[in-house]
Amino acid sequence: MDRMRDLGTPAAVIDIGRMQANIERMQRHMDALGVRFRPHVKTSKCLPVVQAQIAAGAQGITVSTLKEAEQFFAAGITDILYAVSIAPTKLPQVLALRRQGCDLKIITDSVAGAQAVARFGKEQAEVFEVWIEIDVDGHRSGIPPEGEALLAVARALHDGGMRLGGLMAHAGASYDCDTPKALRHITEQERGGTVRAAERLRQAGLPCPVVSVGSTPTALSAQDLRGVTEVRAGVYVFFDLVMHNVGVCAMEELALSVLTTVIGHQEEKGWAILDAGWMAMSRDRGTQKQKHDFGYGQVCTEDGEPVAGYVLGSANQEHGILCRAEGVDREIAARFPVGTRLRILPNHACATGAQHPEYHALRADGSVETWPRFYGW
Amino acid sequence: MDRMRDLGTPAAVIDIGRMQANIERMQRHMDALGVRFRPHVKTSKCLPVVQAQIAAGAQGITVSTLKEAEQFFAAGITDILYAVSIAPTKLPQVLALRRQGCDLKIITDSVAGAQAVARFGKEQAEVFEVWIEIDVDGHRSGIPPEGEALLAVARALHDGGMRLGGLMAHAGASYDCDTPKALRHITEQERGGTVRAAERLRQAGLPCPVVSVGSTPTALSAQDLRGVTEVRAGVYVFFDLVMHNVGVCAMEELALSVLTTVIGHQEEKGWAILDAGWMAMSRDRGTQKQKHDFGYGQVCTEDGEPVAGYVLGSANQEHGILCRAEGVDREIAARFPVGTRLRILPNHACATGAQHPEYHALRADGSVETWPRFYGW
Repeated sequence: MDRMRDLGTPAAVIDIGRMQANIERMQRHMDALGVRFRPHVKTSKCLPVVQAQIAAGAQGITVSTLKEAEQFFAAGITDILYAVSIAPTKLPQVLALRRQGCDLKIITDSVAGAQAVARFGKEQAEVFEVWIEIDVDGHRSGIPPEGEALLAVARALHDGGMRLGGLMAHAGASYDCDTPKALRHITEQERGGTVRAAERLRQAGLPCPVVSVGSTPTALSAQDLRGVTEVRAGVYVFFDLVMHNVGVCAMEELALSVLTTVIGHQEEKGWAILDAGWMAMSRDRGTQKQKHDFGYGQVCTEDGEPVAGYVLGSANQEHGILCRAEGVDREIAARFPVGTRLRILPNHACATGAQHPEYHALRADGSVETWPRFYGW
Repeated sequence: MDRMRDLGTPAAVIDIGRMQANIERMQRHMDALGVRFRPHVKTSKCLPVVQAQIAAGAQGITVSTLKEAEQFFAAGITDILYAVSIAPTKLPQVLALRRQGCDLKIITDSVAGAQAVARFGKEQAEVFEVWIEIDVDGHRSGIPPEGEALLAVARALHDGGMRLGGLMAHAGASYDCDTPKALRHITEQERGGTVRAAERLRQAGLPCPVVSVGSTPTALSAQDLRGVTEVRAGVYVFFDLVMHNVGVCAMEELALSVLTTVIGHQEEKGWAILDAGWMAMSRDRGTQKQKHDFGYGQVCTEDGEPVAGYVLGSANQEHGILCRAEGVDREIAARFPVGTRLRILPNHACATGAQHPEYHALRADGSVETWPRFYGW
């Protein structure tokens, strides 16, 4: 078994204790609210992480690609929601998974999409389960709760012989919140809009067994989920600096970091050069417009203790520039000599994880295990 | 053999004809200037691409990670420069490659780094070849041409029994230029600074056989490289929108694009939703501060023709939002119906390529071949 000191750099490190606490915190909250929880596995794309989520009580998973569906189905998980509007050309791949026994559900938000599914389903004698995406905040996809298209899409599916499984919404705008009041507001907006849309379906005599909502900020802010049957969230499993700025986690709950080594300095500028650039951190600058801009990440010691005031100020492909967030530290070379190992907390765990072929999972006893992750489509 | 229409989306597509023209253009320019050319393979991390560069006349390669060195050495390439200051903990890996016959050269820009190499070399009875990095533009790493540390680092290597192979510089600031005049200026600054540093070494009685400079903008802008022995450049092989804004390539020379499918619309906003988000494009927003901001990329037809005025305006993990760069197209759903296939030209080819496990290489006859690429460290 490796120890941290055996790892080459840069490397993605998961603090298993923190990850487990994050999983349990979310699951307890969902259990208390009386809803099922369907974690979004796009954050980790890593089987041991997802197994820990299921062991804690998650029911089914959410995926962002059919490759995620294939990989986790191959590992024995059958209840899967593919939460990106289906492209008609992907239907044969969905069919193949369903024919192998995968209970794969797809989504759409247009009549054209619904008709394409119904047409292909009829041709193949397959009853696809389709959920309709609701737009609760103008953030991205979906039909507004009061939108005309809702019933038309539902009928195209239902009358077309498909199984209308329910509705799903994702309040992506919750990422822009940073006060408890704003979070409560967007959480209720997500719930209320989706439930109103479900009522419209039922009033029209259409089925709507599932009402699915979620994002990490709204899931953790929810106090009352009347009418909702399940919640989805992804990044909570690791948390990150964006979520810290949103206000749903403490810095000490961040479970993913990038281990790096000091490889040089520009002393007059107060820079230490690291071997973690944007290839290791990702180009995500999600904290740039938030209340605290962490550059490309918060600098920590190799043990994971934040070094207050020091950030990864900028990044090239394989070079990171460590500096003070404000001012110039002319003692930078003495403080972080060549060879010093540090850990960087990332802005966005989904983006940073995607840059790495594997995670190095750190146990409380200091041992480190390799957890492979996949990428691509 | 696949055709374009057989590809799932999103997918990274290389136009082989354009790539080959880019390779030949650069090599002809280097040949005319009388310098060796050592392409930076961090852009593609793909063997067929690098083999095309070598077939055209490249001598040796530049890498940004030791994994690149290992992979390309395993494919038979021996003359390799690892162009990131060496972390002392990576020396055993360098040693292993050299002992297998890889002519791997490393760099440093500090006395601490030089001493660490000399110490480990002495312990292992290995004469490492080390180049010193010169900072010609205050952009990142390196010792300024007139910097005091230059001779100290050179002596620590030379007197420490290592082989002082030469100097290398990278004018990263050239990416900020967008006029021929500014490009000529930074090109001469890179050449002049590196050559002056080489003269300082030689005047001090130290060897400096190699004088290596380069970046795609400066390599293509160079008219006179007196004193330089080799040039390095990477992104020219594909080019991208950042390079287009810098002014070193036409839009028609961009060889990498991402194939994507329309999966929905928000008609009132003039949005088409695509299945290529930042996971397929990368989070790189390199054109944001340039003279033309392309959002997350320039929209093209499936055949690769730019659709003027339409960009990937924003991106979530697996969703891209196609819109007009200015104004709102309320006919967006009619113009790009669900199922429409498009190609997106990326801001930064190095970052976009890194998101994909393979390239789909498109020949002039319309056939498509899969070229694997690797990632990680």
